[in-house]
Amino acid sequence: MFQLALDYLQETQSQVGDRIINFLPTNHSSAEVEKFYRMMMDYPTRAGKRIRPALCLLMCETWGAKAEKALDTAVALELLQSWLLIHDDIEDESILRRGVPCLHQTYGIPLAINVGDGLHCKMWEMLIQNQRTLGYELTFQILSEFIDLSNRVVEGQHIELSWVENNAWDQTEQDYWQMCVQKTAWYTCITPCRLGALIGGAKTNELDAFIEIGMNLGVAFQIQDDVLNLIGQEDVYGKEIGGDIEEGKRTLILIHLFDACTQAQSQDLIKIMGKPREAKTKNEVQHVLDLMKSYGSIDYAQQRAKSLADQAQRGFQEHFAHLDSPSALIAKSIFSNLIRFIIERQH
Amino acid sequence: MFQLALDYLQETQSQVGDRIINFLPTNHSSAEVEKFYRMMMDYPTRAGKRIRPALCLLMCETWGAKAEKALDTAVALELLQSWLLIHDDIEDESILRRGVPCLHQTYGIPLAINVGDGLHCKMWEMLIQNQRTLGYELTFQILSEFIDLSNRVVEGQHIELSWVENNAWDQTEQDYWQMCVQKTAWYTCITPCRLGALIGGAKTNELDAFIEIGMNLGVAFQIQDDVLNLIGQEDVYGKEIGGDIEEGKRTLILIHLFDACTQAQSQDLIKIMGKPREAKTKNEVQHVLDLMKSYGSIDYAQQRAKSLADQAQRGFQEHFAHLDSPSALIAKSIFSNLIRFIIERQH
Repeated sequence: MFQLALDYLQETQSQVGDRIINFLPTNHSSAEVEKFYRMMMDYPTRAGKRIRPALCLLMCETWGAKAEKALDTAVALELLQSWLLIHDDIEDESILRRGVPCLHQTYGIPLAINVGDGLHCKMWEMLIQNQRTLGYELTFQILSEFIDLSNRVVEGQHIELSWVENNAWDQTEQDYWQMCVQKTAWYTCITPCRLGALIGGAKTNELDAFIEIGMNLGVAFQIQDDVLNLIGQEDVYGKEIGGDIEEGKRTLILIHLFDACTQAQSQDLIKIMGKPREAKTKNEVQHVLDLMKSYGSIDYAQQRAKSLADQAQRGFQEHFAHLDSPSALIAKSIFSNLIRFIIERQH
Repeated sequence: MFQLALDYLQETQSQVGDRIINFLPTNHSSAEVEKFYRMMMDYPTRAGKRIRPALCLLMCETWGAKAEKALDTAVALELLQSWLLIHDDIEDESILRRGVPCLHQTYGIPLAINVGDGLHCKMWEMLIQNQRTLGYELTFQILSEFIDLSNRVVEGQHIELSWVENNAWDQTEQDYWQMCVQKTAWYTCITPCRLGALIGGAKTNELDAFIEIGMNLGVAFQIQDDVLNLIGQEDVYGKEIGGDIEEGKRTLILIHLFDACTQAQSQDLIKIMGKPREAKTKNEVQHVLDLMKSYGSIDYAQQRAKSLADQAQRGFQEHFAHLDSPSALIAKSIFSNLIRFIIERQH
């Protein structure tokens, strides 16, 4: 169904994984610092899908350059993902990440914050090293893309965290869209594609076409993630099923449910969702899930994700019809297949 | 006594403060994001001594360039300090920072971690902007200094945090020295001086002379900080007096005490120091402080700081005797005075 995409992801996975192992430090005269290095190696080497680096490498190839040229930048995207997830897991009080306890669950919050900071520094180190092979100008353009992206991600993250902090449950679909574009779409789709295309040799207007395409695709990706969190299989998905309900996460599904249900149910929902995770009973989580199913909120979200992915698909085909070399055509068909994977995946 | 130093610090303070206010964002269409911007502005504009930027600007002048040339780099040092302190305050469960509640005490840990991350991104943004005025090559050299520094700081931080995590109290003076060099000396003295000198036009061997000078000065700075934490005046010092005992911080003073006291007292000390901060009574904190005084541990630390500062003073005079232009002589006398300030300061 999406074998092309899976093959490409698998190839990326080993390339990126090898480069990370090769790049992050392992040896030090202090045993304690070596322990720190092992902790830094943890998240980046947990078996993720590596969609972000894959998009980056693929777009580099679409514009006719060797994927190798974008490898370190793709790895930096994975390091970004790692430090963000370590801090995000602390902020959300998460338990599992990719099937294994979150870093702070094993080592405590203080050490985990610091490991995230360490990986954050390593991300910039990797990007600065680009200069050796890509030269000053391109390296600076890449750095600027990362600066823009990081600023967006922390702002999106702030918005989402402040909803939790303020116990606010009145988000509209538009609020969700804005948060999701800043927090997910830019860093999962728009910037990875822009970076790959930039390194491949794309022009500015071509880069800018990725904003709309990546917005649609990124929000579709996030919605599918939220759907899987509710109806996925824990051993395939790698996080606790229903964990988003326990964490009180504002998803499109929940926003739809709030709109669709009765006022009494809505007040009931706020009571349950507003409780801290440890105070929520299994029955309460199940009750919220049942309501989501009975009001068709999950179906609604799945439809929405599908239609956004279709828009992304069309946008990509239209904007880049002029890229028709044999290698570009192959890369483009992999991208199309990746879009399907993104909304039909089970993990 | 150190009026020259105080005047220079005051001048730096307003230059750096103005540039920070001018650089960090304030306006956004979302009120929530504007709140995030205000939170980012908080630590960098709290009245700190700004010793790091001052050292950077002063060394730039010592080599004959205008301080202006190093201003953005000096500001980046201040942004580094800010994100480190926000995360450090969470990791140490601190209460006050510069006389005001720590960020996480006001906004909670999740939002505060994210503000630290936001400032971390802004630090790199500032450094990358250097390219406009300093050109590619110098900008990259500065970026490399920051990469090296950040790696050291997170490693030093890990060592210190792991002592707390493992409830370990058997540190030697050498352990303390190693942690302190990585965590404090590089980022308070060595790198700020190297950066200023680099921008001013110093040669590589001149930059490397700062390693030994800054190591001595940086550890002296940290020891004096730890002394003030015990015997300073809260309203001048800006943190809770005795806070380090409450936090269980491994200081040179404590290490001296462990060496000097009886075995029975040592076991008693471990019991008290190992308790979480909220479980320590005022009497227990006072008891530890009394022991430190009775065994001369504070005097010992003060002597050690003084002798390190003297070494730094001599090293600086010897290594840079050849810099004898009128402006270099002025800058050098300010530096000498700053060294005195660093170990005789009350805040």
